[in-house]
Amino acid sequence: MSIELVKKYEGKIEIYPKIPVRSYTDFSLIYTPGVAEVSREIAKNKDKSFELTSRWNSVAIVTDGTRVLGLGNIGPEAAMPVMEGKAVLFKYLGGVDAFPLPINVRSADDFVKVVKSMEPSFGGINLEDIESPKCFYILETLQQSLDIPVWHDDQQGTAAAILAGLINSMILTNRTPEESKVVLFGAGAANIATARILSSYGFKLGNMIIIDSKGPIYSEREDVDHFMYHHRWKYDLAVKTNKFNAKEIEEAFKDADIVIAASSPGPDVIKKKWISLMKSNPIVFALANPVPEILPQDAIEAGAGIVATGRSDFPNQVNNSLVFPGVFRGVLDSRARKVTDEMTIAASETLAEYARSKGLRKDYIIPRMDEWEVYYKVASSVATKAVELGLARIKMSKEEFENIAKKRILRSRKIMSLIDSDNE
Amino acid sequence: MSIELVKKYEGKIEIYPKIPVRSYTDFSLIYTPGVAEVSREIAKNKDKSFELTSRWNSVAIVTDGTRVLGLGNIGPEAAMPVMEGKAVLFKYLGGVDAFPLPINVRSADDFVKVVKSMEPSFGGINLEDIESPKCFYILETLQQSLDIPVWHDDQQGTAAAILAGLINSMILTNRTPEESKVVLFGAGAANIATARILSSYGFKLGNMIIIDSKGPIYSEREDVDHFMYHHRWKYDLAVKTNKFNAKEIEEAFKDADIVIAASSPGPDVIKKKWISLMKSNPIVFALANPVPEILPQDAIEAGAGIVATGRSDFPNQVNNSLVFPGVFRGVLDSRARKVTDEMTIAASETLAEYARSKGLRKDYIIPRMDEWEVYYKVASSVATKAVELGLARIKMSKEEFENIAKKRILRSRKIMSLIDSDNE
Repeated sequence: MSIELVKKYEGKIEIYPKIPVRSYTDFSLIYTPGVAEVSREIAKNKDKSFELTSRWNSVAIVTDGTRVLGLGNIGPEAAMPVMEGKAVLFKYLGGVDAFPLPINVRSADDFVKVVKSMEPSFGGINLEDIESPKCFYILETLQQSLDIPVWHDDQQGTAAAILAGLINSMILTNRTPEESKVVLFGAGAANIATARILSSYGFKLGNMIIIDSKGPIYSEREDVDHFMYHHRWKYDLAVKTNKFNAKEIEEAFKDADIVIAASSPGPDVIKKKWISLMKSNPIVFALANPVPEILPQDAIEAGAGIVATGRSDFPNQVNNSLVFPGVFRGVLDSRARKVTDEMTIAASETLAEYARSKGLRKDYIIPRMDEWEVYYKVASSVATKAVELGLARIKMSKEEFENIAKKRILRSRKIMSLIDSDNE
Repeated sequence: MSIELVKKYEGKIEIYPKIPVRSYTDFSLIYTPGVAEVSREIAKNKDKSFELTSRWNSVAIVTDGTRVLGLGNIGPEAAMPVMEGKAVLFKYLGGVDAFPLPINVRSADDFVKVVKSMEPSFGGINLEDIESPKCFYILETLQQSLDIPVWHDDQQGTAAAILAGLINSMILTNRTPEESKVVLFGAGAANIATARILSSYGFKLGNMIIIDSKGPIYSEREDVDHFMYHHRWKYDLAVKTNKFNAKEIEEAFKDADIVIAASSPGPDVIKKKWISLMKSNPIVFALANPVPEILPQDAIEAGAGIVATGRSDFPNQVNNSLVFPGVFRGVLDSRARKVTDEMTIAASETLAEYARSKGLRKDYIIPRMDEWEVYYKVASSVATKAVELGLARIKMSKEEFENIAKKRILRSRKIMSLIDSDNE
């Protein structure tokens, strides 16, 4: 079905002028000689490129195709359909112009070099589907060296959606971050970023246990020295997490409050028995696609109080698509220089708050993707936080940011409906 | 005026989906999980990315901002307005999705590295506004290493427009390429590429004289050794051109049939006296913008038979915009692996032929930009030549190429008119 669709439309995205062309004389303003005036203005002050070109609303979706969906290292050409799809989501949900840019590079340093070179063209960078641990180095290095926000959706995006769901799950089950014992099942980009974001939010690293393919990570595990040299993010967590010194999976689950699984498709990757070892009414997020690590029904039978998955056909879908459109709308509207963990957490809190405003239930802990008001609300929280942190080039009130985000997203949807009807 | 315009529209281009989004369930086909099927298909055969993604119609407009219009090295941010304007021309005239990508790189090798990495995302590369002689090395290296066409518009685009005008000027003044003495006034990207293309077309290199800021280039000029190490393209021409061994400008113009000036804005950069030294009814192309090296009226007073400039408000505008939209339409429609000088010459011949079909006159040697039929005619000639040369991934008849190019350009204009009315 997807193949027929892209064959019919010959791909998913295209470029359009937003400036009218009514006659050939318009070109003398849009292009030479008139355009020289615009270029001269930017040459005097580079930041003017946000005001006088489309840069203010442009994001590059960059990948090397080394970890695409569940398909692994299939290369940049094969990653393109995913990036194009993401560009459609960016425009529809966030009103953002996202340029898919799968690149053919071998080393992490070459990846960094290529993306750094593109900075003048974009207001933000969205990294996607890059293998771990390369993705951590690339994100950190780019965040340090660029003066525009850099986001790796498989890290911050997933972590933000998880935190949003957790905030409300803890309210429903009377838990606090400080006292919750958390099992992070899977040690890829998502859970490593989640550990960091949860810790910034108030969870204790010592109360977290990260489980990889060999079982729980603890500081004396024999491969921890190897991490020190080859995966310093995992090493850091090996040292700081698991104060229980749990060495077996069952030990890790025992009396845990929360399990966040971001590992391999299930079912039965997480056993019912493990869930039954957790505290009463535990929170179970089983996020693998297409099949969760444990099916919701099984988790509930084993005693789960709240269950979330990555799937839209179950309740409580924990989904990056709730996060990145609003986050980018917010950083672009404020022309932020960075996107920080504080801004990511602001997005999570806004998502959680929105769901509460609609009435929290065990099967509604997080907004659904079709509740489109969340996108401009997330945008305004992120933009406001950027202003607070001194990272915004544009300063407005939260209400002003909300209005402008709403207006921009509505415009995008309206034009999409025009184009749809034309393409039929 | 240009500044107010871009402020009003907040830049010139944006991205739109061409695949309809009617409900949230469509995302399961456009994005995950459905998209995996498309990615798997491309992973099996990379060339499928031309069929299953927008790559078939996508071109990157890449510059380092080192030679922007007449403004010099103003950097990538300040180059963006020009690249955006070009993207509008690409879409309106050629139906091509062109992504402006000013990049921040220092060396020619870094430029090459960055563009090479982008190959999986595009069907072609348009280089723009890169200083000389770096631009020659970058073009050659990329043409050799990429399996998609690489075009530097300031080289091939200008040369093709010049050749188109020359073909008809020679008909009107009874000249042949073999016997014409040609002065190339200016030794930048345009004239160095023009020398090569004219030579491929049938002009004799020995009959050409290239004039740079120091006067005519001849093989014994004292700086020719320097060229050997720092500008091998100029060196090569120093050795092969100017069989007359002309050392002074007046000597160069004496009995010349044609002068092609692509140097610095005039007036009076080319003297009336020099024109009067040329053969009777000489052909004078004075292409500097915004003011030609010699004003048409002055050239005619000095005896010029035919005069062309780069300006739309004089007759005979020699303009890249006549060339690149059709050339790219042609290489994209045929999914060509390269764009060669033969294909460039095919574009020139088609432009010349079109003007003849409309009735050649001294003040109409080349089509005007608003004669939109030329774009799909150029496209089909270029595509057909690609097939002939064994460089096309898609093989069709010339008529089929013409029909498909026409259809694609018409669709683009139609949707632009919808968007225009909406943005008002």
